[in-house]
Amino acid sequence: MKEINVAIVGYGVVGNGVAKILDTQKELLKQKSGLNINLKKVFTRSWNKVFPHPIDENRKAKNLEEILEDKDIHIVVELTGGIDFPFYLVMESINKNKHIVTANKALLAEKGKDIFLKAEEKNIRVGFEAAVAGGIPIIKALREGLVANEIKKIYGILNGTTNYILTSMYKEGKTFYQALKEAQEKGYAEADPTLDINGTDAAHKISILSSLSFGGFLDFSHVYVEGIEKIDILDIDLGRELGYTLKLLAIAKSHNDEVEIRVHPTFLPSDHPLSKVDGVFNAVMVEGDNVGETMFYGRGAGSLPTASAVVSDIVSIAKSISLGIGNEIEITSMNWKHKELNLTKAKDFYTRYYIRFTVPDITGILAKIASVFAKYSISIAAVIQKEKVLKLQKSLSEKVVPLVILTHTASENNIQSAIKEIIENHYTVEDPVIIRVEDEET
Amino acid sequence: MKEINVAIVGYGVVGNGVAKILDTQKELLKQKSGLNINLKKVFTRSWNKVFPHPIDENRKAKNLEEILEDKDIHIVVELTGGIDFPFYLVMESINKNKHIVTANKALLAEKGKDIFLKAEEKNIRVGFEAAVAGGIPIIKALREGLVANEIKKIYGILNGTTNYILTSMYKEGKTFYQALKEAQEKGYAEADPTLDINGTDAAHKISILSSLSFGGFLDFSHVYVEGIEKIDILDIDLGRELGYTLKLLAIAKSHNDEVEIRVHPTFLPSDHPLSKVDGVFNAVMVEGDNVGETMFYGRGAGSLPTASAVVSDIVSIAKSISLGIGNEIEITSMNWKHKELNLTKAKDFYTRYYIRFTVPDITGILAKIASVFAKYSISIAAVIQKEKVLKLQKSLSEKVVPLVILTHTASENNIQSAIKEIIENHYTVEDPVIIRVEDEET
Repeated sequence: MKEINVAIVGYGVVGNGVAKILDTQKELLKQKSGLNINLKKVFTRSWNKVFPHPIDENRKAKNLEEILEDKDIHIVVELTGGIDFPFYLVMESINKNKHIVTANKALLAEKGKDIFLKAEEKNIRVGFEAAVAGGIPIIKALREGLVANEIKKIYGILNGTTNYILTSMYKEGKTFYQALKEAQEKGYAEADPTLDINGTDAAHKISILSSLSFGGFLDFSHVYVEGIEKIDILDIDLGRELGYTLKLLAIAKSHNDEVEIRVHPTFLPSDHPLSKVDGVFNAVMVEGDNVGETMFYGRGAGSLPTASAVVSDIVSIAKSISLGIGNEIEITSMNWKHKELNLTKAKDFYTRYYIRFTVPDITGILAKIASVFAKYSISIAAVIQKEKVLKLQKSLSEKVVPLVILTHTASENNIQSAIKEIIENHYTVEDPVIIRVEDEET
Repeated sequence: MKEINVAIVGYGVVGNGVAKILDTQKELLKQKSGLNINLKKVFTRSWNKVFPHPIDENRKAKNLEEILEDKDIHIVVELTGGIDFPFYLVMESINKNKHIVTANKALLAEKGKDIFLKAEEKNIRVGFEAAVAGGIPIIKALREGLVANEIKKIYGILNGTTNYILTSMYKEGKTFYQALKEAQEKGYAEADPTLDINGTDAAHKISILSSLSFGGFLDFSHVYVEGIEKIDILDIDLGRELGYTLKLLAIAKSHNDEVEIRVHPTFLPSDHPLSKVDGVFNAVMVEGDNVGETMFYGRGAGSLPTASAVVSDIVSIAKSISLGIGNEIEITSMNWKHKELNLTKAKDFYTRYYIRFTVPDITGILAKIASVFAKYSISIAAVIQKEKVLKLQKSLSEKVVPLVILTHTASENNIQSAIKEIIENHYTVEDPVIIRVEDEET
């Protein structure tokens, strides 16, 4: 039986989980895969702390060269943070003919093109199951299980931190900051949660899923991203009255030659399967032309769930190494159409909208706003006008009330024009809150 | 680019779907996999009907030999029914070094051992993604995506026909026979729905999942199976009062050296993710030691969803053929522990129970029944005693009422003993209805 040697670079929460599985479940992996997978080296910037899964001295690499120059190390598992260092590490490892496993979504979303093209050239495999939706095997499902489908749409809850916050706002009536604090105390949000809260993390993940689903690299800087930092409990409550639950949704849809990718707070019908995905769980819905609608649900983060995905990649790559083959075994590459994805411009999105205005409590204001909507061909589906002042973004002296308009499908462009005109005409005393609604009309 | 040739045997609903995908989405499959996959021959007993995807004359095989003797056919797709003929076909094809793709769960559950051992010997791959949960790539998830997990429990809704019937009883108040008739009219139940209704189909599927999850073949005749044919709308309504939804659940749990496999109508908490799986949809929950709880959801039947799974197997096998490798590429075989699974005996199950007695409306009967339960160490969690006669299984002259007892976790053995004593003492005027409850206590 061939011995496959693995090195881990970056020894944090996920790294400890991976080492734990490789060390303590070696026999299980051998029984299942017929392979002897050995954790040979671990490198981290500092060994001066207590680790959940301690590493014996002879496996601690003193420097990166000890790993890069070791011809017996077949697979480098990249579990560091950021982009620059891991990019260097991954490119160097590929150059040294080492296969890669990474959980780094930022790296792949922003530097994926360079990495995958280099890997293709060197016949190297890059496993990244753990980069999207933690332990859920969604990458394998898209590459192989659903290979016989043209993917029409892929969307889901891809960030556990924001889902925890929104669930706790929806279910326990907490404010955004109360919920964020609680998430940090429980270890579900990092000390600096910016990239989670502002939607960037989910955007990295949906970009990776989009490349696999639609077959091309894309310019991440053009992906439309909006976070949950401005979400008010008032909108969650008003949405609930309309039958909606608020989620930070990452959405990718294919329209002929264009791909629409967007991440933003989204109202979903409360009986939609994704509305039931609570707390730190993730879920991805995939619509294929043959399979119809499928959903994949599980833990999107955490040491062992993420390590489960990392180790599945290690085993798969170890298997191909043991058979003397490289990335020619992979079904569905990240750029299987061999052309860049053409992203829909933000103003060209079509969806439904929830818009909350803050209006003076005088007769006739609804009619005025409705006439602006009509002018821009925006059709209104429902209106909620509250008789009493519920809560305000800023303190205001005049008596104002929230007025919510739910539209039928409209273009983002027309919505923005209508809003601009409504603001200019002072029909709303605060900038309106705009939340997109994913509730397709038949 | 190597050409991989496929033959389909059995040209029904799924066969037509597979041929349609291979013929009309050839280019998509080529782009994704780099392979030229060609449907060379189709064999069916009779060509004398109209097919949704017609086959040109030169691809119609006149007899089976035309396929078996054709050295250019690499993959035989078995989509016939029953067991004897497909068993012959599959064994003959393996003997002729042809790889197999099948959607036949009965075949694999009852003859899997012979088939997989023969395939191992001949270095042949047998793909069966479509045999369980239609288009949902659950087989691949267990073999590869979740390889780094010891599976603790796998359970789910694996039969669309019975789920359609139970959903329509629960949501629309239909009786079993009304719901069955409707399912037949809509094409969701076959003319002879026996194997669906009596739980056999779900049992075949959970047996296959158990072999993969726990690593051994098993004697299918020892799997505990109970169908939905005796389900009364009264129990669905009383269960709802207790916060439960009734589903036909297939359950497999690992306990040290034993595996507990059972298929029966089951009450699940109404907020459990599987309770929301309605109509013909399937869903599988997998609990792994590292990944935690994951769920896979989608269409469990139908022409194109099932064909999507069949074609994913075809592509995967075509890929290994093109690289000159056989089943050594497969991670996680059906008997990776190389020993038969030891099934828990039915009387040794431990679970919670819903038991509905039909009792004379006299004081003291609850006390009598409760004392029998106490004698057998069965702890009662809740009781519903209806004051008025709701509905009866048989017409009875005396005034009787339903009495429902929900227990804490108890042994099947003790439950059966208690029930026997209660019947012998005539505390119930009809045989009680016993429905197991999957609601773990913490």
